[in-house]
Amino acid sequence: MIAELVTTGSELLLGQIVNTNAAYMAQELNKIGVDVCFQTTVGDNRARMKEVLAFAMSRADLVITSGGLGPTRGDITKEVSAEVMGRTMALNEECAARLKTHFAKIGREMTENNLRQAMIPEGAHIFVNHAGTAPGVAMEKEGKLLVNLPGPPSEMKDMFHRSLLPYLAVKYGVSAVIFSRVLHTFGIGESMLETKLDDLVLAQKNPTLAFLVRPTGVIIRITAKAESAAAAEKLIAPMEKEIRARIGDFVYGVDDEKLEEIVGRMLLERKLAVATAESCTGGLVASRLTDVAGSSEYVKGGVVSYTDEVKAEILGVSKDLLESYGAVSEPVARAMAEGVRHKLGAEVAVSTTGLAGPGGGTEETPVGTVFIAVSGNDGTIVERHRFPGTRGQVKFRASQAALALLRRYINQGKALH
Amino acid sequence: MIAELVTTGSELLLGQIVNTNAAYMAQELNKIGVDVCFQTTVGDNRARMKEVLAFAMSRADLVITSGGLGPTRGDITKEVSAEVMGRTMALNEECAARLKTHFAKIGREMTENNLRQAMIPEGAHIFVNHAGTAPGVAMEKEGKLLVNLPGPPSEMKDMFHRSLLPYLAVKYGVSAVIFSRVLHTFGIGESMLETKLDDLVLAQKNPTLAFLVRPTGVIIRITAKAESAAAAEKLIAPMEKEIRARIGDFVYGVDDEKLEEIVGRMLLERKLAVATAESCTGGLVASRLTDVAGSSEYVKGGVVSYTDEVKAEILGVSKDLLESYGAVSEPVARAMAEGVRHKLGAEVAVSTTGLAGPGGGTEETPVGTVFIAVSGNDGTIVERHRFPGTRGQVKFRASQAALALLRRYINQGKALH
Repeated sequence: MIAELVTTGSELLLGQIVNTNAAYMAQELNKIGVDVCFQTTVGDNRARMKEVLAFAMSRADLVITSGGLGPTRGDITKEVSAEVMGRTMALNEECAARLKTHFAKIGREMTENNLRQAMIPEGAHIFVNHAGTAPGVAMEKEGKLLVNLPGPPSEMKDMFHRSLLPYLAVKYGVSAVIFSRVLHTFGIGESMLETKLDDLVLAQKNPTLAFLVRPTGVIIRITAKAESAAAAEKLIAPMEKEIRARIGDFVYGVDDEKLEEIVGRMLLERKLAVATAESCTGGLVASRLTDVAGSSEYVKGGVVSYTDEVKAEILGVSKDLLESYGAVSEPVARAMAEGVRHKLGAEVAVSTTGLAGPGGGTEETPVGTVFIAVSGNDGTIVERHRFPGTRGQVKFRASQAALALLRRYINQGKALH
Repeated sequence: MIAELVTTGSELLLGQIVNTNAAYMAQELNKIGVDVCFQTTVGDNRARMKEVLAFAMSRADLVITSGGLGPTRGDITKEVSAEVMGRTMALNEECAARLKTHFAKIGREMTENNLRQAMIPEGAHIFVNHAGTAPGVAMEKEGKLLVNLPGPPSEMKDMFHRSLLPYLAVKYGVSAVIFSRVLHTFGIGESMLETKLDDLVLAQKNPTLAFLVRPTGVIIRITAKAESAAAAEKLIAPMEKEIRARIGDFVYGVDDEKLEEIVGRMLLERKLAVATAESCTGGLVASRLTDVAGSSEYVKGGVVSYTDEVKAEILGVSKDLLESYGAVSEPVARAMAEGVRHKLGAEVAVSTTGLAGPGGGTEETPVGTVFIAVSGNDGTIVERHRFPGTRGQVKFRASQAALALLRRYINQGKALH
């Protein structure tokens, strides 16, 4: 089965946004063995879009569009698609009712143009939009399928997984042939990883190994090709085991797992409540911890202490300490973690103090220097880091290091000393 | 002049990399007034690439490819392009000599397959590659132009600016400038915007208007085409003025400005220090405020109060209030802002308390309900919101609403009551 992706919208044509939707859909379709052979981008121009869609339908079996399903005059993808498939449009009462409910729920007035989104080509299969307002549709003609998905990536992805994939599975019996396992590492660089795993990289065939640098750390992607997901997993398992035997300490998670989710699960299992005291990360550690659904079960809260005053008065860091060592120092990181743990009555606490830059660096304490402390029943440990990058990168890397140290502390407790 | 971009390569088709080349080329061409009407991506498949290029040459005046000029067997773009243009390929001695010099310089052996890069379609104009080895070419036929650029972004960009733009300027005298102005709004939906600006959208010609939904809110892009940037700005100014006259309250910034930067600048100018008290946003407001370089000048810090305990003990919210109204309520939001302002000795403070979900909603207080308060010398104001979306989206939107209310408070002070 040959597929073509058609992404629409002037922002794409003008290069104002990068086409992440095409990459995402291609990747997901590939995983289930659908060959994407063409990707086309066209603007909100009726004649050109019609030409593109007609041509796509002539050379592909499956055409998926994204974009142009919204309420405004420029949103014409569904209309033009209906034209290409020889169908008329009519107001779908169910879709209209869903729109009205949505607007009532968020307490906003529904302007008339919103009803454009409830206009559906006759006989089309409807995909409900659970992440926005514009529904998607699928239309069949002579054994070929044209699918319209929304443009905003969060809506497109939700509909792709929730509705389109199951729909394709039923329709074509497509099944997984490519299967990947991602190992997330933190604290080890790409070249060191390659050195430690060099022979595995050289001998790779099926599964293959790839290292990819991400803001969260380097990820190792193990990819296998097989007839089924189970068969692919069987190829991947021994490779994963070998990698973990060599660098297991640096691997904190797999696949879509996030470090904040893993730490959260550990806190929940061990019935520990956590508190944060942040200087250079400015609330990012607390924000990441609370990104996880259900985190109110184990997050007490935190203090962002951006001034010495707040460090002293709220966290109880002694002024002597601040004066003798400076705010960016091992003793202050320690006192911050211990202070917030005591103050908020948490079992475990994590603190950050450092220089995110771009200004303020000295020879002794250059920009990127960050002290991270974790305090709990097993005592307090402190790490000194030096992160490269922009202010935003230093902040994120420091938050990642803070969560990684918290994870190791909970895992190993006293063993860390 | 109509242009089509053809990007080639399996990594793009498989979605392993995002197509930043297409976005870049589109943006740069647009700036000189060349209309990119189509973007197509195709793999290293001879038949399909030939079809795509032939079709592109039939509907566009200028076709620019990127990718597939390298030394390996899979690099076929130049060959296929020559076929489409009816030209034979021959070894170009100058290109071959340049390759040999290059390899000698970096002290590497030049394998035979590298000479593929010196095979040039007869009569083609050659673009020297100053950032890599594969030269680019341009071929003319019946007044239309086919250009092959390399795939690696650094090589493509270097050749685009150093060679292609001057070549196009001489050939077509292209010089028109496209200039955009982005207005960032918050608190008004896309459909309501269109309703309020409908006549401007209908009458648009030059400049044009577009609405785009972003996580930060809806943005309005005003785009003008003119002979110079100054002339384009002159076309944009009256349109911007008219839009601001109608919906100015919702416009918080322009172009690349971020709300946290705008708020930061205002705090700095007015010499106000800010503090935050966050429940549902979990530190995100503080984190965004401290994303801005120099924010230590005006951010005192904040408290993430994820439990009633922390709200009461650190922020001084009365237990009566928490019991009678619940944590997610107008009076608690008010007490949090006032409490943190007092506690941290800040001139102005912002608080959030709400339900980010997905669990925990009730009929009275459904998921997405967020109270936001700002407290300062002009008193305290509280807003009630209901945000749609996932937990992450509710968190971000609440942080955006908190910063927006802070901005309005600083701007308008007492006038808000």
